[in-house]
Amino acid sequence: MKAICILALAALTASLPAAAQFAKKDDAIDYRQSALSVMATHFGSLGAMAKGDVPYDAKAAQENADIVVFMSRLPWAGFGPGTEGGKAKPNVWTENAKFKELAGKMEGEAVKLAAAAKQGDVASLKAAFGATAGSCKACHDSFRNR
Amino acid sequence: MKAICILALAALTASLPAAAQFAKKDDAIDYRQSALSVMATHFGSLGAMAKGDVPYDAKAAQENADIVVFMSRLPWAGFGPGTEGGKAKPNVWTENAKFKELAGKMEGEAVKLAAAAKQGDVASLKAAFGATAGSCKACHDSFRNR
Repeated sequence: MKAICILALAALTASLPAAAQFAKKDDAIDYRQSALSVMATHFGSLGAMAKGDVPYDAKAAQENADIVVFMSRLPWAGFGPGTEGGKAKPNVWTENAKFKELAGKMEGEAVKLAAAAKQGDVASLKAAFGATAGSCKACHDSFRNR
Repeated sequence: MKAICILALAALTASLPAAAQFAKKDDAIDYRQSALSVMATHFGSLGAMAKGDVPYDAKAAQENADIVVFMSRLPWAGFGPGTEGGKAKPNVWTENAKFKELAGKMEGEAVKLAAAAKQGDVASLKAAFGATAGSCKACHDSFRNR
């Protein structure tokens, strides 16, 4: 059942790559920061539940996790050639294969997070939240300025 | 066929209300502005196609429109009680029923826009783009500071 959920989510999101276009560099920077910010808000709501700061709510957990999955696919279109700047370190562009690999790992963890949220128990959510948070941190440590 | 597409999209998005939570007023303002900005980027890509500024691409049109539909549901959670500010006029809160009505109309136009994008011709896209842009403007005219 878990595998089916993961596959279904992957199929859903695989049909929605980000097709964003930018006239100016600053538009791309604003776009990627906005997409990551929206994702972070919903990821934060899951974290509050995983940590017990707010009561566990299975329906809200699913909703937030589904939004995280959707948003996880969007930011990368905003890191195109010539869009250096913002909080991004220059190695986003000079080590782009590694950047894309870590971005893809986060997307994969988000899909697993949404599947875990559908299990309906806080223990599953907590484990998947931790794994996803780790994938955020791995990329931020290498590619984001503090 | 068009009706089926609209229903399918409505069902897809109806399962994903925004369940965002905010510790601070500025977080809510940042969230709604970010969500609206991401939506505007993808709506702008559709506009460029509708206006002939970039070549019509049926697949990209569908992708962008599906993202617009998804994003159209998110911003409203960021306009909760006590989050006055940003570009929002005070009447978002004092005339909240009207605000919600116009927001809902835009969500409905976005669903029709995505159905039009799936028709695969630029004329359908152009007509639906215009209607959706009108629903953005109607709300901005009443509720957004310039």
